[in-house]
Amino acid sequence: MGMRPLRSLVSFEEAMRVCLEHARPVTRTESVPLQEAGGRVLSEDVAAASDVPGFDRAGMDGYAVVAADTFAAGQFRPAELGVIETLHAGDLPSRSVEPGTCVEVATGVKMPPGADGVVRVEDTEREGARVRVRRPIHPGQNVSRRAEDVRAGSTVLRAGEVLTPSRVGVLAALGRVEAPVYGRARVRIVSSGTEVVPPGEPLPDGKVYDINSYTLLSIVRECGASAALAGIVKDDRPSLRRALEAALDQDVVVFSAGSSVGERDVLVDVVQEMGQVFFHGIAVKPGKPTLFGKVGGALLFGMPGYPTSCLSNAYMMLVPVLRQLMRLPARPGERAEASLSTRIVSDTGRHQFYTVRLDDGLAHPAFKESGAITSMSEADGYIEIPANVDLLEKGERVLVRRF
Amino acid sequence: MGMRPLRSLVSFEEAMRVCLEHARPVTRTESVPLQEAGGRVLSEDVAAASDVPGFDRAGMDGYAVVAADTFAAGQFRPAELGVIETLHAGDLPSRSVEPGTCVEVATGVKMPPGADGVVRVEDTEREGARVRVRRPIHPGQNVSRRAEDVRAGSTVLRAGEVLTPSRVGVLAALGRVEAPVYGRARVRIVSSGTEVVPPGEPLPDGKVYDINSYTLLSIVRECGASAALAGIVKDDRPSLRRALEAALDQDVVVFSAGSSVGERDVLVDVVQEMGQVFFHGIAVKPGKPTLFGKVGGALLFGMPGYPTSCLSNAYMMLVPVLRQLMRLPARPGERAEASLSTRIVSDTGRHQFYTVRLDDGLAHPAFKESGAITSMSEADGYIEIPANVDLLEKGERVLVRRF
Repeated sequence: MGMRPLRSLVSFEEAMRVCLEHARPVTRTESVPLQEAGGRVLSEDVAAASDVPGFDRAGMDGYAVVAADTFAAGQFRPAELGVIETLHAGDLPSRSVEPGTCVEVATGVKMPPGADGVVRVEDTEREGARVRVRRPIHPGQNVSRRAEDVRAGSTVLRAGEVLTPSRVGVLAALGRVEAPVYGRARVRIVSSGTEVVPPGEPLPDGKVYDINSYTLLSIVRECGASAALAGIVKDDRPSLRRALEAALDQDVVVFSAGSSVGERDVLVDVVQEMGQVFFHGIAVKPGKPTLFGKVGGALLFGMPGYPTSCLSNAYMMLVPVLRQLMRLPARPGERAEASLSTRIVSDTGRHQFYTVRLDDGLAHPAFKESGAITSMSEADGYIEIPANVDLLEKGERVLVRRF
Repeated sequence: MGMRPLRSLVSFEEAMRVCLEHARPVTRTESVPLQEAGGRVLSEDVAAASDVPGFDRAGMDGYAVVAADTFAAGQFRPAELGVIETLHAGDLPSRSVEPGTCVEVATGVKMPPGADGVVRVEDTEREGARVRVRRPIHPGQNVSRRAEDVRAGSTVLRAGEVLTPSRVGVLAALGRVEAPVYGRARVRIVSSGTEVVPPGEPLPDGKVYDINSYTLLSIVRECGASAALAGIVKDDRPSLRRALEAALDQDVVVFSAGSSVGERDVLVDVVQEMGQVFFHGIAVKPGKPTLFGKVGGALLFGMPGYPTSCLSNAYMMLVPVLRQLMRLPARPGERAEASLSTRIVSDTGRHQFYTVRLDDGLAHPAFKESGAITSMSEADGYIEIPANVDLLEKGERVLVRRF
């Protein structure tokens, strides 16, 4: 047994710097069905082929009118208009609105020609084919303009963006059924050591079950990478060489070596022969005897054999490397503290879900309007404003929950 | 068009209380391969069939000795022992250690009979078949005792625990290849409205693509629930009835209704006929016109049709309901602030990965020893202690990253 001591340890910070320097984002791309696209990373900019919405539409349930007809209307002097058509959701207008007439509209329907505003149903009183309007509107009121959300030809999503649910929604809004995305990182997991037996088999005296293959597989899949187990190989030079050669088409190969120093050295020798060793031994606890290198295009981790050391290394080093390979943000799903870039008034008396974009510690409102899917897809997360809070001052600290 | 106004709004807090009161955790169970078990929730307590480790084993690379032979050893007066065997990883001892002799051992091998401690290789000097020991050890030193990690018959994992990577590792350590888990929540997503067209089809004038089916599908899958699209149904009573009847084997049915008040009312009527409406209209912004009810065993959400309203409601209400149905903690993957329950000394000069259990705002150390997979599986998350920090005081605030 060649019991060589570990070479001088690198610091954890230095080890991470080296790991991330060599973790070049995957450039393979593929096309996936929209239903499977959540959480993947866009590989191309996406431009809109057409306007969204593709037509001026009613923003409220009510009556499409010539706004000028309502200018003089009031609670005690209603404007009276003739209802010439009723449009349910999805109906197309067949008649034009002339002064003195109106069309009953459901939210979202195409505005009839001639009408330039919608009176909310709450501000009207219907009697047969006549409707009394008790409040004036201005031209354009309660109308969502064509292209208000997305203009044809504009870039709505950019390569490198993670397909959060709202960005999947943007693709759907454009009529797409597939998404161009970067490939998942491919990871091969190899356990080595003659003392290790796969779960499910009888356990001979002096042996232990293979734990590391399964903890590594779980954590790699949790990151969204694709992972496969190569099983258990012997800790000798030819076996390790063969295992490594079979894994060179992968992005990352993770060995969890036997627990003794001697066995780890065999792997170091093999990696040195076939590629490069970047470091071997880190000043972390647990997890000191960790190897990082590269063979062909594959990054290589040699993890300590002790299960918790192996797993804590995976959390601290493998996960950030995989996330960088897949162009995923370092820290998903968590709350980030930020300062509001502007004052927010929330005097609706309702609990508010407020989307924000994060930039350099500042939270910028990313709100457009309720119907605009892009307002959410441009946001990094959201804050919640309780019903009894009316005002958040500029500079106030808020907790942003990332999408 | 029956343009009935929404009934009185419930507060967001009240709406959530009602939602969570009706979200009874799924009781279906299934058995999944260990490779697929990550993130699932155990449905049974798991007891160990045998001890882990199953034998006393060497905790270090070095020499298994009779400790008493080393009591008088020192730098300038080494104890000299005869090496009678060498055990590589996985080897079984064939000879007994008698006073004056020793066996060379790799970390993890079964201790030879007669030996009661291991001298680290760093504290020895080898010459042929003799080894000089320059440091005394006490009996039991550098030996991992049989059953130190898990004792046969003890319960190591409990029903309701999420299978984090370390808990998957515990199952592997017991030799299991399958895990008994609760079923995923089953969600059916229905878009309604004659104005809505599936992506991929040509878009007629006055229509819009179905966005909500895809945003909802993404967010439901992101939670780990299983989701299927029922497609687009008409907003009339018979169509909604049929869609609801076809979904009664689900845990949750999510309708994203047409955007007009009239259309939403049809769904309310159908749910009232077939089951119960718990609320219809919440004081949130956006997302006010939201319906929650129950038909048969299926919970039912009627989401507003506006895409961002639908999605923000899904984040605020559907996700917590799904997580409760699946017995998942409310807020995964995020940092929790906590106070240390005890002082932690970390004077190794190494960056430390330190597992903790969270309990009522306190972070308790969950550290056993490097080889014990249970030390991690009992933890809720970890803190990192930089190399240059030697001491964390009891009561100090730390950021715990949840597993």
